[in-house]
Amino acid sequence: MAELHERIYEIALKRAIFVPSNEIYAPTAGFYDYGPVGAAIRRKIIAEWRRVFITNEGNHEVETALILPEIVLKASGHVGHFSDPLVECGKCKKQFRADHLIEAKGKLGTQTMKIEEMGKVIEELKITCPDCGGKLSEAKPFNLMFKTNIGAAEGNPAYARPETAQGIFLIFPRIFRYAGSKLPLGIAQIGKSFRNEISPRQGLIRLREFSQMELEYFFDPEKGKLEKFGKLKGVKVRLYLREAQAEGTEKLLETTAGEALAKGILPNEIFAYYLALTQLFYESMGIPFESLRFRQMREDEMPHYSKANFDIEVRLSYGWQETVGIAYRTDFDLRSHAEMSKKDLSVFLEIEKKKLIPHVIEPSFGLERLFWSILEASYRKEKEREWDWLALPTKIAPYAVAVLPLMKKDGIAEKGQELAEKLRKRGLDVLYDESGSIGKRYARADEIGIPYCVTIDYDTLKLETATVRFRDDGKQERIETGELARYLEKAVEENRTKL
Amino acid sequence: MAELHERIYEIALKRAIFVPSNEIYAPTAGFYDYGPVGAAIRRKIIAEWRRVFITNEGNHEVETALILPEIVLKASGHVGHFSDPLVECGKCKKQFRADHLIEAKGKLGTQTMKIEEMGKVIEELKITCPDCGGKLSEAKPFNLMFKTNIGAAEGNPAYARPETAQGIFLIFPRIFRYAGSKLPLGIAQIGKSFRNEISPRQGLIRLREFSQMELEYFFDPEKGKLEKFGKLKGVKVRLYLREAQAEGTEKLLETTAGEALAKGILPNEIFAYYLALTQLFYESMGIPFESLRFRQMREDEMPHYSKANFDIEVRLSYGWQETVGIAYRTDFDLRSHAEMSKKDLSVFLEIEKKKLIPHVIEPSFGLERLFWSILEASYRKEKEREWDWLALPTKIAPYAVAVLPLMKKDGIAEKGQELAEKLRKRGLDVLYDESGSIGKRYARADEIGIPYCVTIDYDTLKLETATVRFRDDGKQERIETGELARYLEKAVEENRTKL
Repeated sequence: MAELHERIYEIALKRAIFVPSNEIYAPTAGFYDYGPVGAAIRRKIIAEWRRVFITNEGNHEVETALILPEIVLKASGHVGHFSDPLVECGKCKKQFRADHLIEAKGKLGTQTMKIEEMGKVIEELKITCPDCGGKLSEAKPFNLMFKTNIGAAEGNPAYARPETAQGIFLIFPRIFRYAGSKLPLGIAQIGKSFRNEISPRQGLIRLREFSQMELEYFFDPEKGKLEKFGKLKGVKVRLYLREAQAEGTEKLLETTAGEALAKGILPNEIFAYYLALTQLFYESMGIPFESLRFRQMREDEMPHYSKANFDIEVRLSYGWQETVGIAYRTDFDLRSHAEMSKKDLSVFLEIEKKKLIPHVIEPSFGLERLFWSILEASYRKEKEREWDWLALPTKIAPYAVAVLPLMKKDGIAEKGQELAEKLRKRGLDVLYDESGSIGKRYARADEIGIPYCVTIDYDTLKLETATVRFRDDGKQERIETGELARYLEKAVEENRTKL
Repeated sequence: MAELHERIYEIALKRAIFVPSNEIYAPTAGFYDYGPVGAAIRRKIIAEWRRVFITNEGNHEVETALILPEIVLKASGHVGHFSDPLVECGKCKKQFRADHLIEAKGKLGTQTMKIEEMGKVIEELKITCPDCGGKLSEAKPFNLMFKTNIGAAEGNPAYARPETAQGIFLIFPRIFRYAGSKLPLGIAQIGKSFRNEISPRQGLIRLREFSQMELEYFFDPEKGKLEKFGKLKGVKVRLYLREAQAEGTEKLLETTAGEALAKGILPNEIFAYYLALTQLFYESMGIPFESLRFRQMREDEMPHYSKANFDIEVRLSYGWQETVGIAYRTDFDLRSHAEMSKKDLSVFLEIEKKKLIPHVIEPSFGLERLFWSILEASYRKEKEREWDWLALPTKIAPYAVAVLPLMKKDGIAEKGQELAEKLRKRGLDVLYDESGSIGKRYARADEIGIPYCVTIDYDTLKLETATVRFRDDGKQERIETGELARYLEKAVEENRTKL
């Protein structure tokens, strides 16, 4: 499987889909930049998530600050607990994650180890510096937030936010009133977050700067039912339960969201609904059922306040990888901020005549991990085609169509440009490409997942027809140019999920 | 005019359009959060800018890292020169901008003062601490970047980017190859930037965290012509030239982009083209011609490498305010990065058989300043209407339409929800609102600039017709519900500029 991600990185660099940041100096580990193709795919994934998780659901979207003062992150627990175990080489001064070094020696269970234990295990296993063989220091916690200071005077510490969620909790009272002072209330945010990882690795999987799509769904804990769950209770999911993990097997429970709820595996209908919706969303992104599982967090991994945590994991060339977390956060965050700020963050529900601090269920998506999962899932290499390509769903392809004049002369290029312009005016994302042989251009279009190529030739000038070529099977069809916009719109629309 | 911005802030807070960040603690000066309405307007402004400055122009969009290592910002000059003059009170330790204190005493010309001079002027004018009257320190430069450190080891200083432009220069070699190794080449970026202002003020005008929409247009300096300039040379603009500024007058030169170019006021067609496009874009956002001027930077304000700088200024309740800068940056940035990184950043143009470092013209938009300008320009208060409202252009209104059932009973609410759903499926942004009297709901819709209200009543149930009410004149029209989607789509489309 190593070849798969190497090959995707090759394509990514060649086509500037994503590239390491600050490449002309030395790439900064954990940071990536996105070229036109990558930025377009990202925007389209975001647009789909917005449609499925915000607009269709009647949830609300906010955009809050990236830099947060320390007090906010003290309340959330990030100042105290958001850290990784760090060891330093006494000789070369390089720093490493203690848990990674221990895991590399084949020892499991670092997630439940206390930091003092890690030091002992490193001694027992005689682990030394992987770079120079020097003696390693005691393990100590390293806080993963990027720290800075607001204003000219020292003493106003602040951090680049480690998650978008905290901004939602801070603005909650305003949005609650704006939205009519009723529960349930879903508030979502899409944006950058930051974790100052000790050793970023695996390309887009472990980043220091990344993007999240998070929804905080606020509700009365006595009302965990959701009428629309009826529509999704039949959604099939695969669960990787605690028992199977404890046994050390990979045994999965294939069931439905409704069944899992009935058995008490999921805490309520709201949780089950968003779990099912996440499953459907992932499948609509081209990630097959067989590559997905929901892993139930073990008791010892869960925060003390949490009532349920399931991570959607995707089978990647790197192994199973967490890409979404669904968490029942209870009233922990609002309660913590209320205590720290000494403000009453409870809400009064007029109809029910009661006052409460709402509970929260949070689906939290990592954009880059989803993006990478989509790239792996859509990668194709077949005997019949000389080149490899991406079978991206049309709705997230960087362009819906490539317009390719067969040659530049005799007005064919001009005809192509004119047609490209017409299609753009209809709202289609169009790539116009006239350089190189037609075969090379098909290959280039396939390689970035463009689902339709339209070739302009002499017949286009004479007969107003053009050839449409389909990425997925290479077949071709002759279409009247006047019909082309409608034809492509229909094809794009059909490819949209009914989610 | 003070009332105007106070009234807009009132509406903004009440409707959660924007609110100070971390309000439940103490609002952090210079940071704002955006609720559903504000976030929607922002997204739509961005979508329009993308359409006008990127897609229609065949330019490319990238998304690069927000945290940049120090070396990048040394090369760009930000580590050395991006600072404000700071004084500290010896008694209460509060810090102030020296230039602001001097200006507050009515003395002009701080922009051209050296920092040592400021100290002298403060002494001469006997300026003391505005808070406690204490003696102020010497003025010293305070760097305006938010500083942090990458990784666990100290000694890897980095900064939150002060502009999106630098990321574009860093990724330029990749995008140049991706786009076929040709000039001209436009690369744009939309995203957050940061300036650690000493004293943020004027709400959305001077922020510590803000958003930029920037285009770097790379070209061969011997080829400053642009064929499509022909289409925009007749665009009318008002220029506030250096001479008028030197005279201390507000005299404006009303001319066209073509005339200004012919007179040598603008350096080339590319510059003139983007200046004209900026004018059209601003007018399409509802900001009237009379509230706009392009101020030519004075010689002493311009960076040494710059060949031309014009700021678009908007007449606001705060006075004339810079909101866009158009700068001819020459080859300064690429040349600096080439020197610092020791990489060759020149390009080879195959057809012309020549090697050069491209020149750059940059239109740089501040999103929040534009957003605020739009709010001021669209604010309406009339005798005939009890409430004030926003005449937002439809394309950037938070919702295209509000669906309002006249009452909740007899299935009217259900009919309204059904219709709202239908319109949403057609891609329209719909607000469904059933609470309060119909008059209050019209007022609420007007207040956030929704251009159309659709009222559902008994006739809708019987005759399948509904009333459309127009925000701008309050007039009403009866429409068949089956025709409604098409009717609104057409209305929305007509309101789009042909830009």
